[in-house]
Amino acid sequence: MTEAPATNVTLDEIVALCKRRGFVFPASEIYGGIASTYDYGHYGVLLKRNVKDEWWRAMLDGPDRIVALDSAIIQNPRVWEASGHLAGFSDPLVDCRTCKLRFRADKLEDSACGRKPSKHPGETEECDLTEPRQFHLMFKTHMGPVEDDAAVVYLRPETAQGIFVNFKNVLQFARVKPPFGIAQVGKSFRNEIVTGNFIFRTREFEQMEMEFFVPPAEAEKWYERWIERRREWYEELGIRPDYLRARPHEADELSHYSSATSDVEYRFPIGWQELEGIANRGDFDLTQHANHSGEKLEYFDQATGEAGEAYVPHVIEPAAGVDRALLAFLVDAYDTDEVEGRRRTVLRLHPRLAPVKVAVLPLVSREGMPEKARAVYDSLRQRVGAEYDEGGSIGRRYRRQDEIGTPWGVTVDGQTLADDTVTLRDRDSLEQVRVPIVGLADELAARLELPWRSPKLA
Amino acid sequence: MTEAPATNVTLDEIVALCKRRGFVFPASEIYGGIASTYDYGHYGVLLKRNVKDEWWRAMLDGPDRIVALDSAIIQNPRVWEASGHLAGFSDPLVDCRTCKLRFRADKLEDSACGRKPSKHPGETEECDLTEPRQFHLMFKTHMGPVEDDAAVVYLRPETAQGIFVNFKNVLQFARVKPPFGIAQVGKSFRNEIVTGNFIFRTREFEQMEMEFFVPPAEAEKWYERWIERRREWYEELGIRPDYLRARPHEADELSHYSSATSDVEYRFPIGWQELEGIANRGDFDLTQHANHSGEKLEYFDQATGEAGEAYVPHVIEPAAGVDRALLAFLVDAYDTDEVEGRRRTVLRLHPRLAPVKVAVLPLVSREGMPEKARAVYDSLRQRVGAEYDEGGSIGRRYRRQDEIGTPWGVTVDGQTLADDTVTLRDRDSLEQVRVPIVGLADELAARLELPWRSPKLA
Repeated sequence: MTEAPATNVTLDEIVALCKRRGFVFPASEIYGGIASTYDYGHYGVLLKRNVKDEWWRAMLDGPDRIVALDSAIIQNPRVWEASGHLAGFSDPLVDCRTCKLRFRADKLEDSACGRKPSKHPGETEECDLTEPRQFHLMFKTHMGPVEDDAAVVYLRPETAQGIFVNFKNVLQFARVKPPFGIAQVGKSFRNEIVTGNFIFRTREFEQMEMEFFVPPAEAEKWYERWIERRREWYEELGIRPDYLRARPHEADELSHYSSATSDVEYRFPIGWQELEGIANRGDFDLTQHANHSGEKLEYFDQATGEAGEAYVPHVIEPAAGVDRALLAFLVDAYDTDEVEGRRRTVLRLHPRLAPVKVAVLPLVSREGMPEKARAVYDSLRQRVGAEYDEGGSIGRRYRRQDEIGTPWGVTVDGQTLADDTVTLRDRDSLEQVRVPIVGLADELAARLELPWRSPKLA
Repeated sequence: MTEAPATNVTLDEIVALCKRRGFVFPASEIYGGIASTYDYGHYGVLLKRNVKDEWWRAMLDGPDRIVALDSAIIQNPRVWEASGHLAGFSDPLVDCRTCKLRFRADKLEDSACGRKPSKHPGETEECDLTEPRQFHLMFKTHMGPVEDDAAVVYLRPETAQGIFVNFKNVLQFARVKPPFGIAQVGKSFRNEIVTGNFIFRTREFEQMEMEFFVPPAEAEKWYERWIERRREWYEELGIRPDYLRARPHEADELSHYSSATSDVEYRFPIGWQELEGIANRGDFDLTQHANHSGEKLEYFDQATGEAGEAYVPHVIEPAAGVDRALLAFLVDAYDTDEVEGRRRTVLRLHPRLAPVKVAVLPLVSREGMPEKARAVYDSLRQRVGAEYDEGGSIGRRYRRQDEIGTPWGVTVDGQTLADDTVTLRDRDSLEQVRVPIVGLADELAARLELPWRSPKLA
């Protein structure tokens, strides 16, 4: 099998576009920043919201019964005792006595040390490593005002556990029975040793996780189904299929709780990397929380046996990162071409993901065109995300919209004032057609519901 | 002026409804909970999302130029040095040597101690207080894996500072000039000593903050305007006007940075309490961050003087709590009446806030009605949030929808199968009209855009 060509955009070009157009800024930048932390600017907020909305749509409006949850970032620490995070969520670290740097003992090959640290220092060079020590990946803090007698609590390292501890509440109020899912989007925090590659791996990040509870005998079937569905989700939102793959974990990669895991991976400029993991977690989590809490966390199936039967559902978990999904959508959409003899940068984002759906532009800032364009803008923006822009040449304004991925441009010109028609420009084909203002909002709203295919495939 | 009657619902009734219908659960409940922390269930997530969406709509689609931001929870600690939080964001605490409880020295009257602690123990009873000590309200943690040499960092106590430190970035990318605003929604954390009243005051909470940058001479005008606008926002979303008030702070209540602050307050079952503060912060924040960072945080106005003039904009800040806004909407919407001889609990939520807009119900679960109802449901749910429910009697299903505030109910009955009409029921008037299925989605979508008035005012 020949592999798809590496994407022709570098991470640096993405970082530059994100800053230039206000998608993503380094956090605390005026204070020299803070390691691997980013703030989202205007278009970044809109794009991120669209990514999350599409995920919610896939979860809540799909064929299965899935309900929403939003649990707190700081939970009772016993949650992390039961989940195994308190004991096991750590990395082995070593210090190099020579170069004074710190590495993960299990990933020495990733280290930035010029001296090529080795587990056997005598063999290679002068790197002299300490014995590995375990360092904890959960952020620890204190709840209650006085540190010495306040409760030690942790920032959650994943949203999933908030779902498991609410299993019983959801069963009661939502009148659900397996198979059903509980979905959650929210921030998680991991005190990672190795961060980097822009927003790909940060210590503060946002997750989209869903726990799907099924009868044990159906676990394998649902595991396969969710791998397929989640891969499709990225494709339907425009990711090129040959830049996506589902990769099953090898036996030695599997977490202790998982009998099978597959990653949906995207071919980033830095290589194939995980977008989302789909794990068959079995009954591990519910059993752990039942044992630690003393609560029965099971489903009583009245349809089984004579008097009914209780069982612990198995769990299939698709767990995605919002920030890295957003990065994949940006990378995949990034393109350059030539328009009227000039190089153009364009984000060929799926229209539903695009931060702005339609830009309304007066051809020139006089002769009543701005007033007319504002009226058109007002008629559109209640139905689709719109932006009005009257500064600078029309070509420059289009290039700006192309860079933020706006799929449609509406230009108000001299003829508009005479016959209430405008030109409608397509970001990808660059076609401009003349259409009446009446019905334009309906037309664009309808287009947003249509299936879409990346022009980079054409 | 006679005061509006205290609301006839208690906080306990709201808490019970929230748990029963899956709006809000106590966090980590199977482990005995964790002080004043809550998880949002399915309808809570939807309601909260609607509250935030309405806020964004008011900010981004209003008459002024406002852009979005989403800054990180963990920022460079120098941000909190400049903002004054590191030095000043603390409360004076005292311990009682007799009863072993801890109180805020400035709020002794709020204490739960039976012995009535006093600053002058000899005078009243046997409470024997220590000297006040300052306790810090920011959650502290360490970034980097090794606690002893890692950076001390803080969870943000407000989202506002993330806006100020991005002022320069936004000026550059967004091509804005004062007056303009930067809006943000996100979690903040305060290690409060006194929490409680359900989701009214929690240590982890969500804010909706907007910083509006204006020429200094216009600050007073914009301050007044934003008080008015923010009060109107709650009214337009259905809060009864006589349960709302804007209360200017007394001189001794003002923060050091503010020349004027007004609270928009709601009359909760626990009394008048702040929903949102609107502060005139002057140039305090930008000046502080300019001094601490060495960056120029000002606007260069080319229209002023001969060669233009630089100035530090003043800031008007409407800062609202998402959780307490949600609580106010729930309390205000809560009502009971009698329907067909039975007591009914109903949430008279504004249709745009309601978690579900329309419930589609087959009259009975046979004779092809479920299939038909599912088809109607599928035709509606792409346009408006819909729910399908076929279990139990029709009366019981309606009562359930009334309790979660669903404004419209569509019933598929025998006649539907013959002529493709359904009954459309109104939650508040209880009117049922027969309407064709064709056009129903358009009709409901259009209703969501109409102004709405609480039936409790009628």
